[in-house]
Order: sequence, then C-alpha cells, then structure tokens
Amino acid sequence: LASPEFKPLALFKRFNIEVLATTDSTNDNLLAHANLKVMGNSGRVIPTFRPDDITDPARKDFKHAIEKLGATSFTSLISKLKERRAYFKSLGATATDHGIFSPQTQKMHDMDKEKLFTDVMNGQRFEEYRAVMLFEFAKMSAGDGLVMQLHPGSYRNYDEEIYGAYGPDKGFDIPTATTYTNELRPLLNEIGKHPNFRIVLFTLDESTYSRELAPLAGAYPSVRLGPPWWFHDSINGMRRWRDSTVETAGFYNTVGFIDDTRAFCSIPARHKIARKFDAKYLDEMVENKIISKKTALELAPQLAYHLSKDFFRL
Amino acid sequence: LASPEFKPLALFKRFNIEVLATTDSTNDNLLAHANLKVMGNSGRVIPTFRPDDITDPARKDFKHAIEKLGATSFTSLISKLKERRAYFKSLGATATDHGIFSPQTQKMHDMDKEKLFTDVMNGQRFEEYRAVMLFEFAKMSAGDGLVMQLHPGSYRNYDEEIYGAYGPDKGFDIPTATTYTNELRPLLNEIGKHPNFRIVLFTLDESTYSRELAPLAGAYPSVRLGPPWWFHDSINGMRRWRDSTVETAGFYNTVGFIDDTRAFCSIPARHKIARKFDAKYLDEMVENKIISKKTALELAPQLAYHLSKDFFRL
Amino acid sequence: LASPEFKPLALFKRFNIEVLATTDSTNDNLLAHANLKVMGNSGRVIPTFRPDDITDPARKDFKHAIEKLGATSFTSLISKLKERRAYFKSLGATATDHGIFSPQTQKMHDMDKEKLFTDVMNGQRFEEYRAVMLFEFAKMSAGDGLVMQLHPGSYRNYDEEIYGAYGPDKGFDIPTATTYTNELRPLLNEIGKHPNFRIVLFTLDESTYSRELAPLAGAYPSVRLGPPWWFHDSINGMRRWRDSTVETAGFYNTVGFIDDTRAFCSIPARHKIARKFDAKYLDEMVENKIISKKTALELAPQLAYHLSKDFFRL
Repeated sequence: LASPEFKPLALFKRFNIEVLATTDSTNDNLLAHANLKVMGNSGRVIPTFRPDDITDPARKDFKHAIEKLGATSFTSLISKLKERRAYFKSLGATATDHGIFSPQTQKMHDMDKEKLFTDVMNGQRFEEYRAVMLFEFAKMSAGDGLVMQLHPGSYRNYDEEIYGAYGPDKGFDIPTATTYTNELRPLLNEIGKHPNFRIVLFTLDESTYSRELAPLAGAYPSVRLGPPWWFHDSINGMRRWRDSTVETAGFYNTVGFIDDTRAFCSIPARHKIARKFDAKYLDEMVENKIISKKTALELAPQLAYHLSKDFFRL
Repeated sequence: LASPEFKPLALFKRFNIEVLATTDSTNDNLLAHANLKVMGNSGRVIPTFRPDDITDPARKDFKHAIEKLGATSFTSLISKLKERRAYFKSLGATATDHGIFSPQTQKMHDMDKEKLFTDVMNGQRFEEYRAVMLFEFAKMSAGDGLVMQLHPGSYRNYDEEIYGAYGPDKGFDIPTATTYTNELRPLLNEIGKHPNFRIVLFTLDESTYSRELAPLAGAYPSVRLGPPWWFHDSINGMRRWRDSTVETAGFYNTVGFIDDTRAFCSIPARHKIARKFDAKYLDEMVENKIISKKTALELAPQLAYHLSKDFFRL
Repeated sequence: LASPEFKPLALFKRFNIEVLATTDSTNDNLLAHANLKVMGNSGRVIPTFRPDDITDPARKDFKHAIEKLGATSFTSLISKLKERRAYFKSLGATATDHGIFSPQTQKMHDMDKEKLFTDVMNGQRFEEYRAVMLFEFAKMSAGDGLVMQLHPGSYRNYDEEIYGAYGPDKGFDIPTATTYTNELRPLLNEIGKHPNFRIVLFTLDESTYSRELAPLAGAYPSVRLGPPWWFHDSINGMRRWRDSTVETAGFYNTVGFIDDTRAFCSIPARHKIARKFDAKYLDEMVENKIISKKTALELAPQLAYHLSKDFFRL
C-alpha cells in the first residue's frame, strides 16, 4: 500500500474516474481543491456546496457558521451565500447537496424574512427557517445553475451515547417516514418549470418511489430521481427502485448512477455493479418485449454515463 | 378517420364493448345519455353519479352546484341528491364515483347537520363537511344500491400556473400518502356489513395494499378492491397489486379489471393487457402449485368479465 | 379424533415440538402450566408474559387487572410486575409479548411517575402511560432477561357490532400505518446496547421493513426482526420481508421462524413452509452467486432452528 501506484491520484487514474465531487460545508476555503488545481494533471476533483451547517439552526455549529459567513441579516445571509456559491463554482462545483430532515419548503414574503432571521438567532422558528432556506437555495440554483440535490429523511445521530463518544456518521442514523408532495409544492410551484433549475430527489423511504417521486419527476422538467440511496443501494434495492419508477418516470427522468461513497476504493466496483444491474434490467425488458434491443442499446450508455454527465452539467 | 367505421358507435361495436360508463357531475342533465337511448341500437352507455362538486366546498363551483341543485338546508341537500341519484338510475347508472382527497368519513347526529350546512356555506368546517358527506353517500348507496367507488389521495391541480393557464387534468396531479383504516371506520361500522351496500376502494398509495385495503376487503363483505389505478395501472403495478393483496383478500374480493381511461380507442388494448397479465399470473400460480389448473380456469373468466359485471350490478 | 393418538400431548410428540409457548395475561395463575409440570414427560410448554391488560388503560379490564395485581402506586405496580415476571420465569417463561397500538416509548423522571399513575386511574394521560410502561417493561427485560416482543399496529376490535356480539379476535382487526424510528428512540437510547436486553420487532406495515426495522436491527445489538406477521405470514409476504431486510440486517439479525398460530394442528405444516421457503431463498442466492453454497448450508439450520432457540434463550 505504500508503493506509488496506491497513492490517491494514481488510483484516481487507474480507476478511470472522470470526475470526483467532494461535499464541502458553507465556509470551507476549498484549499485542497485550489492546491489540486495548482498541481495540474491531477484529475477532475470538484467541490459540492453543502450548506447544512447554516440550514439547520439546531446544529451545534450553526451560530459559528453564520458568524464565520459574516451574515448579520437575512439579506446579507443570502448575499454571502451567493458569494460562496460563486467561489465554489470558480473551483469547478456544479452542484449543491442538502442533508435535511424534511423536504419541507416555504415561500416567505421579503418583508417577513428579517424578523425570521432575528427569531432564529434567538432560538425560535427553526422549522420555518429550514423550509424557507430550502426554498431560497432552490432560487439560487435557478440563478447560478448549480444542480440541487436533496437527501432527506435520516434521523441523524440517533444514539446519543454513540454520538457523544464517537461523533456523527458512525452507523446510528435511522431513516424515518418521509413525504414530498406537500413539502415540495411551494418550491415546485415557484421554479419547478424554470429552464435553468435542476433538482435531484433521493429518499430513504421506498414507499415514495411510485407514490410521489416518480409522478413528480414525470410532471416537472426540473426534477430527476437520484439512484437508490444508502440502505437501498443494493441489488434488491436497485430492482425495487427501477420497478417502482420506470413506468411513470421512465429512464430519462433519472440521473443514472452516481455514487456517494466515502470509501474511495469502492468506486470502480460500485459503478460496475450499477452497470451490470442496469444491463441485466434492460436485457430482461428486451426479453419480455417491453422495449426493443435498439432502445436498450441506446439506454445503456445513458444510464452508465451520459445522464449523470449531462444533468450535473459536467 | 372520417370514414363511417371510425365513428364512435361503430368503434363501440367493433371493440365489442358491452357497457361503457361515463362520469357525470351532480347536476348534469344527462341529455347525451337520453339521446343515445332514443337513438336505440347504440350500445349500453350509462352515466355514473360523481358529486365531487357538492362534496368539496373548496371547489370554485361548489356554491353554484349547491344552488343549481336547489339545496337550501342539509335536509334538502340529501333529499335533492336522492332525486338526482334516482334520475341517474333511470338512465342506467349502477354506480357512483368519488374523487376525494381523503377517505375520511364521519357520522353526525341529525341535530348537528343543519348547523354544519350553514357553516360550510359561510366558508367554515370544510373537512368535517367532506367526511360527513362521504358517510351520507354511503348510506344513500345502501339505500338505492348504487355501487360506491372511492378514488382518494391525489393532490389535484398541484401546479397553480398550469391550472390557471390550462385547467384541471393536465398531468399535474401528484399522489400523497393515504390511509384508510381509521378514516373508513365510521362508515364501515355503520353499513360495512349491510347486504345492499357495495364499495370499491382504489388507491395511489401502494403501501396500503397489504396493510389496509386487503385486510378491509377480507373482513367486510361490502368492500372490494379496485384494480391498480392511474400511475399503478402498468405491468409492474399490476404485479405489485396482485402480489400484495391476493393472499389476504383473494381474487373474489376484487372487482376484476375495469378501465377508467379517457382515451376511447385504448379500451380494447387496455383490457387485453389486463387479461393477458391475469392469465400469466394464474399460470404461474398453477406452475408453482399454489392453485390447481381447474381453479385457474374458473378464475380467468371471473377476473376478465364476471366479477365486474356482478359487483357493479350490470 | 377421539382416539388417544389425537390427544394434545400425543400430537405434541408426533409434531416433534421442542418448545411451545403460550401467552398469558398479567395475573394468570398459570395453573395449567404448573399442572403440566407435575404430570411430567409432557413436553416443554412454557408461559409468555403478556401484560396488555395493565398496559392499556382504555381496556375494560384495566382497572380490574391493576386491582388484582395489588398495585396501588407506580412504585408498587413495577414491584408487583417484577414479582409476576419472576413467577412466570419459574414456570419456564423466557419472553414477554406486547400487543400494543403504537411502539411509542417514553422515559419519565421517577418523581413524575406517581402523578402519572394517579392521573391514569382517574382516566387521564392514557397515551403517556402506555409509552412509559413500554419503556419500563424494556428496563425490566434488561434486568430479568425475558426477551421482549413488540406486536404493534393493529386496530383491534375495529367493528363494534362484531366485538359486541362475539368478542375479540374474530377477524375484524385491521392494520394501520406504523412507525418505529422516533417511537423507539427513548427505549433504544436507554438500553438498546445493554448486553442483557433483547427485543424482537414485528410489524403489520411492510413499508417499515427497509425503512426502519432493518436499519434498527443493523445498528442495535439488542434488536432482532421477527418473521413476517399475521397478514404477511404468506409466501409473497415472506419474500417481501426477506428481500427488504436481508441486505441491511442480514440473516443473523432475525429470530428465524417462530409461529404465533392459535391453531395447534397447523404448526408442523407452517414450520415446514417456512423451512422450504428459506431453503429456496438460500438456493436462489447461491444460484445468483450472492452467497456461497457453504454459507447457505450454514444458514439453513440457523434459520430453521438455532436463531430462535438462541435468541429466545430456550
């Protein structure tokens, strides 16, 4: 493992990775990204704007993040966030990511926003703030073209003892029932048909595949379905996802396979499984005369490559 | 397409349609139905009573519909509705249809109903009114024998812009999480075992198939399951529906296949797919020795023809 | 049927039953169990502690059960329940069973518990009491080692007329939407990682398999998944359960097959079906190269026998 061919950038090339996107919090200086750029010839590694720290006032680091951002009012908050997004874009970012509990969105009159900001800083109206911010992020995405990704429904840091002793992301995040139809309506009514807005929906609640997500992706040109996520990123999970969405949303309203692993070395195997699964799925559809072989051959590279590349503006 | 064999009644015969039921709103004069009767030899085309306009006070046409009906009190509302139902029956109607948001039902003491009517006309207590009306319609069905159909769970006119520009039914109706057990209890406790009451349950929330709908259809003699509806009226959708209901509700607690298409020419193909799917499904059960071939041969015509005909009193 | 070989104990031996557990209410004197012990050579028939009567204050027999138990305060209630559990254990009990509407649990400060007891006896705070008691039962299980089983989500005695005329358990219990993540958090944060605590989760809401139950069983060492229950104890139901849980919770976080039938003679057939289903399931996994044949051969006896025996401390 100490030999040169196991260094990250060597593996990056050996794995034939075209783009790798990290997720970075609101105030990240992206120094590592800048350094990589300077090094040159190091593969395309881009940041993703993930402003969870300023979206959820219940987080311990919320006030610190707001302060570091230099936001002193709602107006300045939005303005500073736009600056940050522009900086992320300058280092290659094409997307944002939102790890939220609920996909609730809310449209608020401008005149009420400053009061909301003050109240939140005083420890009140957290839920409203989260919903308003998600709505605002969508509007920013329509403006600057960063593709918005929603990852809702995980009860994070479920076990206080584990969280206290070892911190977040230690296997004690448990999914909860999630709904989207009512929650996303303010956002989709505002910019769901905006030509520059793009949003990718993920879920940990499989009952939403056929009930809410596929119909939303079928109706709104801005909406695409993310691949099965986390616990559902598995053989059976992929099958349930495809089976429950393909007849309503089709293939072209998904973003193909993208991988949100933290394990760098798992990337080639994980993508290979996705490609093999989709190849088998298409083959079965041809066998059952649901689609022609010609269509299957057109779809395969879309699912494996083009859909992700195109929708994420890569 | 201009040639005589493509005229609606010619197609009606060519498609070998035995009965076609339209849905018509509360105050419809059913003139087209009356005219067809007068023409004679024109196939059996019957109306279906769909009183959504007087069931949902939030509809723009609610007050107009109440007024046109001539209802000035709760008592007169019920009385006028019974007259309308009798008129629908006189032109062949055997069923009602209810496009509702929630299947919530509520039993209300007679003495409280007039106050409810007044309050609703003054813009209040809409949810309660909807639940009370659904309960009342069930009682009317037990009385006049019109088979009640429930189609809940669609967030209709989800996109205000589309609705404003193009009106309803333009592809922007999105399903929501729906539950039935608590909601239908008042109704089923009142007349779920009534020998003359018949109700068909549809859903856009597939998680209710095994959890609520199949158990309800298994318990109450009045309850039958409608075929997979709308987004779920597909090959995978049919499979999920059968797989999730057959072991609890069996085949005979369904109504076979009925089609609620708006596309006249799709009817033969759509029924053929249902027949082929069910034939394959029965065949697989025979293969797996779940049922005998004899049973499968008895079931096939039931699913394709008799269950619908019998339950809808056709 | 009158011949000696059809007597219960003869069948018990013929069926090759190793252990049969009954469910018995809080104050049951377990005389039948004591008698069986005295008879000797009669097979292992053990009681299970099912304190539903003192858990749900809305039950008609609640006050009588509290009185019979001799509980006059919260402190004495817990103390008397511990005595009863010890008595059950002395006659072979290794588990408790909880037929509850919701799996909601709640941790309460000791100083507030007596007030809760008084309020409940005065007809108030029923929901809170149920949640507190479920939490207390879990703590007792961690103490005395009785394995806790949760059977939530059934709307029991749904039809008042049937219940009034024929009593409970007559086929009119209807499942409802159930969630676990938020509800079990107080309990699991308190003793989910306790080395002596064991809990088995059942459900009537299949949407929870992949969303909540498998992730909980994968995270907490005390949590195991019970086999598909009631309406879902069927061929398709077993498949949905395995497919939705195995990739997250694996096989070893389940308790194998246990049967909660009331029909004594169905036991051999029912266990045989479970064994055949699992054998086929493992065989398909070997065919698809998900597991090796060696692993399948190791798993088969676990699913059929050892997992239940070990986890239930039999």
